[in-house]
Amino acid sequence: MKGVFMTQRYKIVLAYDGTNFAGFQRQPQQRTVQSVLENALNKMSKKDDYITIHGSGRTDSGVHALGQVVHFDFPHHIPAEGMLRGLNSMMPLDCEVKACEIVSDDFHARFTNHGKRYVYRVSQGEFVDPFKRLYTGHYKYKLDLSRMEAAMEDVMGTHDYSSFVAAGSQTTNHVRTIYEAKVYRDQANDEIVFEFCGNGFLYNQVRIMVATLLEIGNGRRPIHDFLRLYEVKDRNECRETAPASGLYLKEVYYPENDEKKSISN
Amino acid sequence: MKGVFMTQRYKIVLAYDGTNFAGFQRQPQQRTVQSVLENALNKMSKKDDYITIHGSGRTDSGVHALGQVVHFDFPHHIPAEGMLRGLNSMMPLDCEVKACEIVSDDFHARFTNHGKRYVYRVSQGEFVDPFKRLYTGHYKYKLDLSRMEAAMEDVMGTHDYSSFVAAGSQTTNHVRTIYEAKVYRDQANDEIVFEFCGNGFLYNQVRIMVATLLEIGNGRRPIHDFLRLYEVKDRNECRETAPASGLYLKEVYYPENDEKKSISN
Repeated sequence: MKGVFMTQRYKIVLAYDGTNFAGFQRQPQQRTVQSVLENALNKMSKKDDYITIHGSGRTDSGVHALGQVVHFDFPHHIPAEGMLRGLNSMMPLDCEVKACEIVSDDFHARFTNHGKRYVYRVSQGEFVDPFKRLYTGHYKYKLDLSRMEAAMEDVMGTHDYSSFVAAGSQTTNHVRTIYEAKVYRDQANDEIVFEFCGNGFLYNQVRIMVATLLEIGNGRRPIHDFLRLYEVKDRNECRETAPASGLYLKEVYYPENDEKKSISN
Repeated sequence: MKGVFMTQRYKIVLAYDGTNFAGFQRQPQQRTVQSVLENALNKMSKKDDYITIHGSGRTDSGVHALGQVVHFDFPHHIPAEGMLRGLNSMMPLDCEVKACEIVSDDFHARFTNHGKRYVYRVSQGEFVDPFKRLYTGHYKYKLDLSRMEAAMEDVMGTHDYSSFVAAGSQTTNHVRTIYEAKVYRDQANDEIVFEFCGNGFLYNQVRIMVATLLEIGNGRRPIHDFLRLYEVKDRNECRETAPASGLYLKEVYYPENDEKKSISN
């Protein structure tokens, strides 16, 4: 990537409210996280060479991030703190740079990450709370937390998640490992929270797993239905997908911050 | 209001996310709380006589409500529970009917209320959190909670609030009574919360008081500056107005629920 000009590689951590973005990835005529970030960076660089950013992965329209990771090569030597401030002064308020560091050229947000943590927040009640409509998935039926806790034991481990991948996925290998899976009641916000940490997730996997777990919590499926779903490898067996609004990419893990993997919340 | 048809008066409690409303009151070509509620009601009534709603008071564009109160006369005898469900099925997701009851014809949301409770939420930090930009006022400078606590003692009582009324107010009597005024740190959400309960509030009064309290908290004004401001009766002495996004109309009080006035989170 280095040409006549010396460039420096930056790693940034982004938080964004996904509501008004058409997802992460750049698309023509759409407001995406990538496009607003690249717009800000290219204004800052004032060079002809277009700066392209690389995210740890895409997030869909309406999906939020608390800790998305992005890298890019920048043609000026700006200290990390200055880059953070400069970007935040140019970015819209629904996307914030939380952290910035200068990294070596072998760092790659997508290829060198070896895990991600997602959170899914569910609100309950007969009607949708106006303040939660964009920030949770709403499930109005009864949920038995203990049934979902038992099912989460099956979610953990190395499995073929073919029953939990949406059409449109470009990968054929659907084997992934989930290191940690937990569900708990967030008393302060009166929500059910699912949390998953794994080495990688398939397209819509978390949202399909959550929809299936809610069916288990409501008694519409047997508690250990995940074990059967791993065998049948058939998306038609889990048709529901929980809404984008409840999903948050919480953290992306790289070799240098391995120790953080065991930390949550 | 009763003509040939018998009507029944309903009192409803509304929660709304003010972000996408041009305030409470109906305005031509604008999406307001009143217009979406009247649209739903008039579709339900299927009569030619237009049903007009009456709120406890207006809220500005971007201001939220947890417990706005509205009354209206409806030309059919629908049980309160049916009215609540019917309205919620027709209203957009950013406005929810939280409660509904049938009341006597002498109930009036605006004229018979004798107090309101407002909450103002403030987020801190150098940059605005993307998830708080629409739901708090942001103040990046340091705040000394104890200074604001001391100032809140002066906020309580019966005073002439002329220094705290925005241009555009239609009332000439600026004397109001604030029964309760408190400020505290909400640890769970990492916010500073102001709460005011009084017999009535002037146009933008809460937002101007909060802006002034933040200046006191930051040391830009003396702690007891409110005492001076009550004397000078001059809006130019408190020029700042805290943003609409942090303000919530939390509760409106009527004679029958007087006992609730002393209850607060």
